Amino acid sequence: MTRVEGRRRQGSRPSGGVPQRPFGQVERRVDWVRVISDDQVAAIHAAALDVLARQGLRVLHGPARDLYAQAGARVEGETVRLDPALVAERLATVPGEFTLEARDPRKSLKIGGAHCVYASVGGPAYVMCNDKGRRDGTYAEMCDFLRLVQGLNVLHQEGGCPFEPLDLPANTRHLDIYHAQIRHLDKSWQTQTLGHARTMDGIEMAAIMLGTTAEGLRERPVLLGIINTNSPLQLDVPMAEGLIAMAAHGQVNVITPFTLAGAMAPVTLAGALVLQHAEALAGIVLTQIVRPGVPVMYGGFTSNVDMRSGAPAFGTPEYAKAAQASGQLARHVGVPFRSSNVTAANAVDAQAAYESQMALWGALTGGAHLLEHAAGWLHGGLTASFEKLILDAEMLQMMDAWFEPLATTEADLALDAILEAGAGGHFFGTVHTMERYERAFHAPMVSNWDNYPNWVQRGGIDAAQRANTVWKELLAQAEDPPLDAAVDEALAAYVAQRKAEGGAPMN
Amino acid sequence: MTRVEGRRRQGSRPSGGVPQRPFGQVERRVDWVRVISDDQVAAIHAAALDVLARQGLRVLHGPARDLYAQAGARVEGETVRLDPALVAERLATVPGEFTLEARDPRKSLKIGGAHCVYASVGGPAYVMCNDKGRRDGTYAEMCDFLRLVQGLNVLHQEGGCPFEPLDLPANTRHLDIYHAQIRHLDKSWQTQTLGHARTMDGIEMAAIMLGTTAEGLRERPVLLGIINTNSPLQLDVPMAEGLIAMAAHGQVNVITPFTLAGAMAPVTLAGALVLQHAEALAGIVLTQIVRPGVPVMYGGFTSNVDMRSGAPAFGTPEYAKAAQASGQLARHVGVPFRSSNVTAANAVDAQAAYESQMALWGALTGGAHLLEHAAGWLHGGLTASFEKLILDAEMLQMMDAWFEPLATTEADLALDAILEAGAGGHFFGTVHTMERYERAFHAPMVSNWDNYPNWVQRGGIDAAQRANTVWKELLAQAEDPPLDAAVDEALAAYVAQRKAEGGAPMN
Repeated sequence: MTRVEGRRRQGSRPSGGVPQRPFGQVERRVDWVRVISDDQVAAIHAAALDVLARQGLRVLHGPARDLYAQAGARVEGETVRLDPALVAERLATVPGEFTLEARDPRKSLKIGGAHCVYASVGGPAYVMCNDKGRRDGTYAEMCDFLRLVQGLNVLHQEGGCPFEPLDLPANTRHLDIYHAQIRHLDKSWQTQTLGHARTMDGIEMAAIMLGTTAEGLRERPVLLGIINTNSPLQLDVPMAEGLIAMAAHGQVNVITPFTLAGAMAPVTLAGALVLQHAEALAGIVLTQIVRPGVPVMYGGFTSNVDMRSGAPAFGTPEYAKAAQASGQLARHVGVPFRSSNVTAANAVDAQAAYESQMALWGALTGGAHLLEHAAGWLHGGLTASFEKLILDAEMLQMMDAWFEPLATTEADLALDAILEAGAGGHFFGTVHTMERYERAFHAPMVSNWDNYPNWVQRGGIDAAQRANTVWKELLAQAEDPPLDAAVDEALAAYVAQRKAEGGAPMN
Repeated sequence: MTRVEGRRRQGSRPSGGVPQRPFGQVERRVDWVRVISDDQVAAIHAAALDVLARQGLRVLHGPARDLYAQAGARVEGETVRLDPALVAERLATVPGEFTLEARDPRKSLKIGGAHCVYASVGGPAYVMCNDKGRRDGTYAEMCDFLRLVQGLNVLHQEGGCPFEPLDLPANTRHLDIYHAQIRHLDKSWQTQTLGHARTMDGIEMAAIMLGTTAEGLRERPVLLGIINTNSPLQLDVPMAEGLIAMAAHGQVNVITPFTLAGAMAPVTLAGALVLQHAEALAGIVLTQIVRPGVPVMYGGFTSNVDMRSGAPAFGTPEYAKAAQASGQLARHVGVPFRSSNVTAANAVDAQAAYESQMALWGALTGGAHLLEHAAGWLHGGLTASFEKLILDAEMLQMMDAWFEPLATTEADLALDAILEAGAGGHFFGTVHTMERYERAFHAPMVSNWDNYPNWVQRGGIDAAQRANTVWKELLAQAEDPPLDAAVDEALAAYVAQRKAEGGAPMN
């Protein structure tokens, strides 16, 4: 390992601060884990095409049905049936890789290929920390959470509002959220796609952020939004509106069926994947009908229910296997792949860690290009946790370190050092060690490696409580990235005007 | 999935009991994760051969040096140098697969190929539980721990005494341990290899267990013992005596250098692997000199120090990567591979879980044939924990479920069920679900999937405390497997005689 590589690996530890590696995407040069054969991939793909041709998708939005029909789909009532040739034709225009702009161009992101984006948790209603337990989200706490997402270098992207600020009115809340995302982050952020108005507000405000117009964004992907089909086999009005507006403006839809095996999907993993694949293909096809060549992602979110209670389970062995199979299916159709870091745990305990690890290994060795909910998700996605945010950041840093290539230059093989230490010697003092030890290994922000007596003497603090200390330290250090005052004023004016107009209609 | 497969997968849940799958080894039909190229494997192998030819191994045991010398090694003082041709010649006689007998022949184990053995923690001095904290090990508690190892179906093998019973005299302790291992387990158990006497006592007592003699075991591998080289590049007297006695009697040595990068090994992972490989090869060669064709395993235990304190770290990204590279190196020389489930955590918290998960994914996707310390290890191996034992058993069950093939028969693809449910329907009530849901998914013993209000109402019990409940429930149900009274008497007589003789000399 050269000195430069070493410096890049070890990252900075400001005096008394939290050890972090610098912002950046670590390239992945490993073979993805394959849990099914090529024949099995083809069988699932064929079955999904069969579902789309025979059963079809129920599309509740008239204009979306019209778009499908104009492209050659068979539309009957609300049902849209897609023939394999139509699907293949539209898949052909999906870009395999693209760049997503961030407010700070140094934080723009590569999507596809050997790169992965870690996005923070998005969507919960509740917020939680060790000190105060679970509670409704508020705007002030949401801004704190955004500051932490900005401050955690391992996170490449904000995930579309960490938790709903329930103290703000529902019809205009999204405007305040977008403004906060732009103010507190110079990183990429995700937008909301629930209905035309919310989607267009995101696009307009992202355009203001970049000093352009919605029209000017058409060839500049800057926003990424999640589109959930209503499994099984439905696309509702708000999601269809969001999808169309995003695609029409050159922005990135992430088509994500929520196929919970045993509930909204077949109880077999293969069956759940057939359904996921069919719904993902139908959504991807629609984006390419709206705007051929627009970037789009294939979302895999297959998990399973608890067979005893019917409750959704996450981070299970089935989840990990489905993530890896989904990566294979996404690569089969040439669409960048989104997966997630998930758990059903109710506390930042061992279960939260092992379920998240199962999800992380499944998603990341499965070749995910976007890891959604990469940090902060708890309670099956109902809660964003400040401590889980830190715990996940630690685990993401570990995965990044794992992905770094194992170098075997002559200096790495260390033959001279081995001969220097000799039999029964040690390596503490060798030149080889002295030159490298400070930067050689992953430096943790949460893990404690004290021996037991020292650990007890220092209070016997467990990992969840150490994470509590870390986020408070990071928050105390947090500084908002500079934002041009004129841009901020233009955003404020836009928000004020849209609030005066009544915001978004309530769905 | 057929009904029979389903039954096998889901396992039994006795009324009110702990959900477990039946005893058995799950075949692994995935491609192992490769973190280095074939060229890099060859480079590390070549460098290790260079170390053995130029620096050599310091062997403190005269008879071992003589064995090396008779086989053609260059011996000079205590230093034994091995030429590449000698190493290659001796590697050629190592069996790639073999069977290890257990007291209950239905629990005999396949080692090598697509199979893996999960062995419980071995070696700590301390024991710990949530109720009483960490304390010295005792014989009574050791027996309780053995009963749990017997009762946990996911564990294939006992790992050589979970913690030292410090209330027994050091010179005869091993005799009581062996007797307890045979009494409380009908599973395979590991023996102690510290010196000739302890090793022979294990062999003699295993022979009594099977109704044969030490001579009669020569073609029947039943015992497995760990041989640690003293890194760097030393083999001490007790370990050499143990290795020779085991190999001479046809028993299995697991040659495991403890190559801690930055301390007893070079600070680069590649350098640590060169040293590990050199030491493992030297030990493996000695077993084949003693008895050509005797089963032996390649142990990989490369980890790294904390660069801030010098403390050993476990379950790090470097550990996982080294485990996978070690699997590649072991396959390169055709020797079955041993890895471990490790953590440096001081509590059964999120750190314990994520470090163990890193180790598990590293070891098991790296192709380990023996997972040492698979359950119960805490504090970097200084402590055996009752709750960690359960937490690990849960994670091992999850890994086994992950390894089960994803089936894609026509019934698995579930096209009929998808058409039956239709757009906007659900799968709870379909025939396809009804026939399968009880056995479709991994059933956890520790994970709690309640929603948050229910979880709080039921006491807000975290994973570590749930594990506490599980081991107590298992221990209350534990029954020793039947042991022929004559065998038990013969063992007692052997123990009494050896105690009268003074046991083993103290090293």
